[in-house]
Amino acid sequence: MRLAWSEECARAEAWLAERFREAGLEVRRDEAGNIWGRWETGEGQTLVLGSHIDSVPEGGRYDGVYGVLAAVEVVRTLRQADAALSRPIEIVAFADEEGTGFGGGFFGSKALTGTLRIEELLDQLARDGTPVPELLARWDVDLRRASEASRHLPEVGSYLELHIEQGPRLWRQGRKVGVVNGIVGINRFRASVRGEANHAGTTPMAGRHDASIGAAHVILGLREAVLAAGGDAVGTVGRIAFHPGAVNIIPGEAILDLQIRDLNSRVIEVVSESFQNLLRARCAGEHLEVKVERVSAVDPVTLSAELRAVAMEVCNALHVLYMELPSMGGHDAMVLAPFVPAAMLFVPSVNGKSHSPDEHTDPEDLVIGAQILCAFVQRLLRLSEDWHGGDVG
Amino acid sequence: MRLAWSEECARAEAWLAERFREAGLEVRRDEAGNIWGRWETGEGQTLVLGSHIDSVPEGGRYDGVYGVLAAVEVVRTLRQADAALSRPIEIVAFADEEGTGFGGGFFGSKALTGTLRIEELLDQLARDGTPVPELLARWDVDLRRASEASRHLPEVGSYLELHIEQGPRLWRQGRKVGVVNGIVGINRFRASVRGEANHAGTTPMAGRHDASIGAAHVILGLREAVLAAGGDAVGTVGRIAFHPGAVNIIPGEAILDLQIRDLNSRVIEVVSESFQNLLRARCAGEHLEVKVERVSAVDPVTLSAELRAVAMEVCNALHVLYMELPSMGGHDAMVLAPFVPAAMLFVPSVNGKSHSPDEHTDPEDLVIGAQILCAFVQRLLRLSEDWHGGDVG
Repeated sequence: MRLAWSEECARAEAWLAERFREAGLEVRRDEAGNIWGRWETGEGQTLVLGSHIDSVPEGGRYDGVYGVLAAVEVVRTLRQADAALSRPIEIVAFADEEGTGFGGGFFGSKALTGTLRIEELLDQLARDGTPVPELLARWDVDLRRASEASRHLPEVGSYLELHIEQGPRLWRQGRKVGVVNGIVGINRFRASVRGEANHAGTTPMAGRHDASIGAAHVILGLREAVLAAGGDAVGTVGRIAFHPGAVNIIPGEAILDLQIRDLNSRVIEVVSESFQNLLRARCAGEHLEVKVERVSAVDPVTLSAELRAVAMEVCNALHVLYMELPSMGGHDAMVLAPFVPAAMLFVPSVNGKSHSPDEHTDPEDLVIGAQILCAFVQRLLRLSEDWHGGDVG
Repeated sequence: MRLAWSEECARAEAWLAERFREAGLEVRRDEAGNIWGRWETGEGQTLVLGSHIDSVPEGGRYDGVYGVLAAVEVVRTLRQADAALSRPIEIVAFADEEGTGFGGGFFGSKALTGTLRIEELLDQLARDGTPVPELLARWDVDLRRASEASRHLPEVGSYLELHIEQGPRLWRQGRKVGVVNGIVGINRFRASVRGEANHAGTTPMAGRHDASIGAAHVILGLREAVLAAGGDAVGTVGRIAFHPGAVNIIPGEAILDLQIRDLNSRVIEVVSESFQNLLRARCAGEHLEVKVERVSAVDPVTLSAELRAVAMEVCNALHVLYMELPSMGGHDAMVLAPFVPAAMLFVPSVNGKSHSPDEHTDPEDLVIGAQILCAFVQRLLRLSEDWHGGDVG
């Protein structure tokens, strides 16, 4: 477990910086806590390869980490082969992609792109009760200065993120590489149900304002609205709490954190509206006050057509079975895409499991992904127009 | 807030012991942490007056405390009046009636009656993670010796507990005193729903084993089963948790603490069975494993007909409007009733609210309750058969 802004994550960052140095990279930690490793292998804007190394609670070993370490391996391989390339390469490990401690994730990539809403975070408490600025200061990040990381953005020419799929499509269809065409939008909501705390024995059923009932309607109503929308839309209630939360007391309040994802913003809106209509209808007559607030909204993103074409060309040249597919998970590439040409490649996850200790990718598939990444770099940063793809292993 | 086995509760106990001493009582803390104050006003078995002074989280000011302090006031009044009584009087504040830290409550009264299951507690952790014996040791209670409190039981002749109703009946019907005819049985259950934790975006709706869905069925199914049983039965889900409990992850497990209460054990069984049948039916096809375990079972209790008759006689003599009613809440009187003649009196709770900071009883109703308690003591412990009731105020 490497939750962002934890001792474990800091140790992983220090270890990673050491690997960067061993690979001959110049290491830099920016104002947002992103770790960069630079190789001056050419001139002009950089090709950035990377992902993140923080994890969710009870997460797996591959989510994020794979893309960063594969990039290190690609740089080592290219250096050993004395590859001649046209532009500088940087590897980045973005800070706090998962957002487990506060906010909605993508802290580091948002800081890089100048889209981090610092004002909103200044007065916020992290989930453990620590003020966010204090939590970050513990790890040498000054929240007020985090956006200075964006000074580096003009130097970034393009971004490629290699990642495990975290879903079952590649694995089920026997494809080795996924060329991602778009990344779903994610809207997060907080549903608050307010009733009245009262004695669990002496309050007759008829006179109750039981917030737990509203909570059940949130859970079932969200699923119903998502299924009614059809397609690939998904909706999840990941967190719940009753207050005061004692066996002898009818819950006076229930708080639920939920999210809706789809490739199409309009579908997210339709699901959100029909969910809230269902919820209101079912809570009518329950003497409950129900509020659904949007906590964050990330729009769906289409990735660079040019970079995707290069990726497919590379897969064809190396005779690797690939497919185009959307990403149902949010990634740092999604945050970068509006600012720089960005692309993503997936490798298969066994049984589609992720964000779980069972997360696994077959070692040979990890190798194939790294080989494609290596060929992609050579293809994109080739010095002349002739390139045949077969010269990396 | 005076949670049992807390600094706040210990301070309240020290304060109470001081009040006992001021009232001329001989103070003793027994092996289970019960606080006793004794007045040698006669011979033979004692009349015990009392209740508890611990509270639930975000509880009110009257639950338990009122009965103990009213008893102190009765003793002060009777001493000042040099009342001649036939038997010794004791006031007791039972330890940990609410059971907020561990177990099912009634720690002190169960220890007194020798019904505390010490073996089960020896290896148990309190809700804050402390081993129960260690938590108790902090407050000078040796769990292995707690049952020695029961040596005092043979000296107890009868028990009378004055308490707020915690429900709306007296208040709605304008009665000043409730003479309790029985106390509901309480069965506590823990429902565990086991699914599979997975990524909230990349796992298609159709492939989910989402424990939150099972949790919603627990909440709605319990209510449906209780309402189907009709009558006064109540059922409540007071506590819930999802694991791992992150916005990005489908809950792999849900744990819910619930309880069912009724005056009739058979009704509790019927509700419990139909709830579990509903739950199984609704979770079929959800790929969830659902388990409902009974955590504790307290049988319904009928109170002493003789003591109830005395209480009604006293109300009539003092022209106080009363009614007979069941108690939907558990009380220490319920634990004592199988061993000694026990009775309970209620005073009205405004709007029926309890276990909430809004808990309130009008001051004049508090006074009427104490007057009835005082008259009850004089009537029960009268030295001769002539008694007219009108001489206390």
